[in-house]
Amino acid sequence: MDDVLIDCLQYANWSGKVFEEMRDAHIDAVHVTIAYHEGFRDTVLNLEKWHQYFQDYSDHIFQGFYAEDVRLAKETGRTSIFLGFQNPSPIEDDIRLLEVWQKLGIRFMQLTYNNQSLLASGCYEKQDTGLTRMGLEVVEEMNRLGMVIDMSHSGEKSTLQVIETSNRPVAITHANPSWWHSALRNKSDKVLKALSQTGGMIGFSLYPHHLKNGSLCSLEDFCGMICKTADMIGVENIGIGSDLCQDQPNSIVEWMRAGRWTKKIDYGEGSASNAGFPVMPDFYKDNTDFPNLQVGLKKLGMNNDDISKVMGGNWLRFFENSFTLKSK
Amino acid sequence: MDDVLIDCLQYANWSGKVFEEMRDAHIDAVHVTIAYHEGFRDTVLNLEKWHQYFQDYSDHIFQGFYAEDVRLAKETGRTSIFLGFQNPSPIEDDIRLLEVWQKLGIRFMQLTYNNQSLLASGCYEKQDTGLTRMGLEVVEEMNRLGMVIDMSHSGEKSTLQVIETSNRPVAITHANPSWWHSALRNKSDKVLKALSQTGGMIGFSLYPHHLKNGSLCSLEDFCGMICKTADMIGVENIGIGSDLCQDQPNSIVEWMRAGRWTKKIDYGEGSASNAGFPVMPDFYKDNTDFPNLQVGLKKLGMNNDDISKVMGGNWLRFFENSFTLKSK
Repeated sequence: MDDVLIDCLQYANWSGKVFEEMRDAHIDAVHVTIAYHEGFRDTVLNLEKWHQYFQDYSDHIFQGFYAEDVRLAKETGRTSIFLGFQNPSPIEDDIRLLEVWQKLGIRFMQLTYNNQSLLASGCYEKQDTGLTRMGLEVVEEMNRLGMVIDMSHSGEKSTLQVIETSNRPVAITHANPSWWHSALRNKSDKVLKALSQTGGMIGFSLYPHHLKNGSLCSLEDFCGMICKTADMIGVENIGIGSDLCQDQPNSIVEWMRAGRWTKKIDYGEGSASNAGFPVMPDFYKDNTDFPNLQVGLKKLGMNNDDISKVMGGNWLRFFENSFTLKSK
Repeated sequence: MDDVLIDCLQYANWSGKVFEEMRDAHIDAVHVTIAYHEGFRDTVLNLEKWHQYFQDYSDHIFQGFYAEDVRLAKETGRTSIFLGFQNPSPIEDDIRLLEVWQKLGIRFMQLTYNNQSLLASGCYEKQDTGLTRMGLEVVEEMNRLGMVIDMSHSGEKSTLQVIETSNRPVAITHANPSWWHSALRNKSDKVLKALSQTGGMIGFSLYPHHLKNGSLCSLEDFCGMICKTADMIGVENIGIGSDLCQDQPNSIVEWMRAGRWTKKIDYGEGSASNAGFPVMPDFYKDNTDFPNLQVGLKKLGMNNDDISKVMGGNWLRFFENSFTLKSK
């Protein structure tokens, strides 16, 4: 089978064990977050850690720069790791850092995390500014460089404006449809339609706060949502972005939410009584569960071609169209 | 003619005019300095300037990453620009920044400028420490990454130790032999022999303080020095590193010498009565004079094969052996 398996968002507590599990599941590519709140220099330090992982675990993983690396990963029995940011903090106020990061292999950047950024509004803000002056510039520059604009955590107005403004397809790497489960982080029909009509992609998230019935969500329910979304916006524009935060301590989700922007506790999608990482659903505990989704889709009658698109084929096509090599 | 022309060190006041003159002279590759005293972030700003030059002057120049880019430059009538540092200041005290810079295309780094660095001793220090503890680590890491260790400004002991320690050939990109003109920046027979016996390269400098008779040096004298050095250490290990600082104001040489390490004036190779940039010799005022060296060597009877090696062929072979692609 020539199918590729791609998970378009993870932020695990990285270890040899996690990389082995990626291999056990035959995942060919993973989009990995290396910045939530870090500025330029701190994100460089995070990249340095990845350079070390690529040296230490070269039998399991290597850095992906272009779509062809997904094929190379499959051929050589490894997982290609594509790096991205969930916040524009690593470019600070310097648009030229985008090209620096692009050369270092950064392939995805969210224009916002949950809050207002210099570029646009996060989905937790009361007012959505849409694209700021710098935001408009950054969209143009990311289009030029072949960096994917990711709107997973952004507000609706900002997201719709980016989809309209960008001359390359946009991604929502990890979220679910609001019609299935209402949450600030999930996306309206309007967004999903605008996204798919412009060749964009949504990666379905397994993070319990994005799931119907949360941690108790069933594989059948999750896969049913995928099938219905395929009917609604087409099977070409959907994939998986598990949002897997495997083996992370609760201090990490506290930091994801509060960064350095508040001195208080921010519960984000959680609550005082459920403040930590939510328990993952039974059918999705770690990377080895990735193939469960194939089984679940099959049981619901999705045909093999469509399953292969959802499990990685669509993301691969999107990578091919997005990560263009600059001509010299 | 399939010859390539390579100048392995320049630090001009960059402009469209300078790039046009590179093209007028058909120079296929230039090693350009982007840091003398800058730390990490400031050097990133310098790189950003080059990204802009590569966009604005894409008909004339592009960034060279590998030896094959020299051939591409020749085929497409442009000059490939290979970036380097004259000081390890851009890695600060963080050895992992080497890989970050390597990925950004930095291909040369001096272990010292004129002073003691964290890695080794500059040629103006009274005591030469040789390689420091970090210096030993950096040599190993640069070897791993395929970054060229450049000892042009380093002390003799440091230089000899690096030549012995490095498992890749070392470069002295811009200096001349001491036997021809005695100067702290020029190199002893011992260094030249150790360098050439390990496949290293020296690029001959046109900077007047490195020349016999300084600004009054004749083309014949300069080319005679090249011929004699070829006899001494072999024609395979020599090239050009003009050290051309075209169109730079004197404030730049003052900064090169004093950086931020002294509050006093440091005259470096100059003197109170000759403090600024020295006047370039008649036969070498700017990039368009590069081919004069071919003419000069020819007049002294050097054969065409050897001239082609000196003018770029040797550097190209050295680039091929030095800038290895890391396997994925």
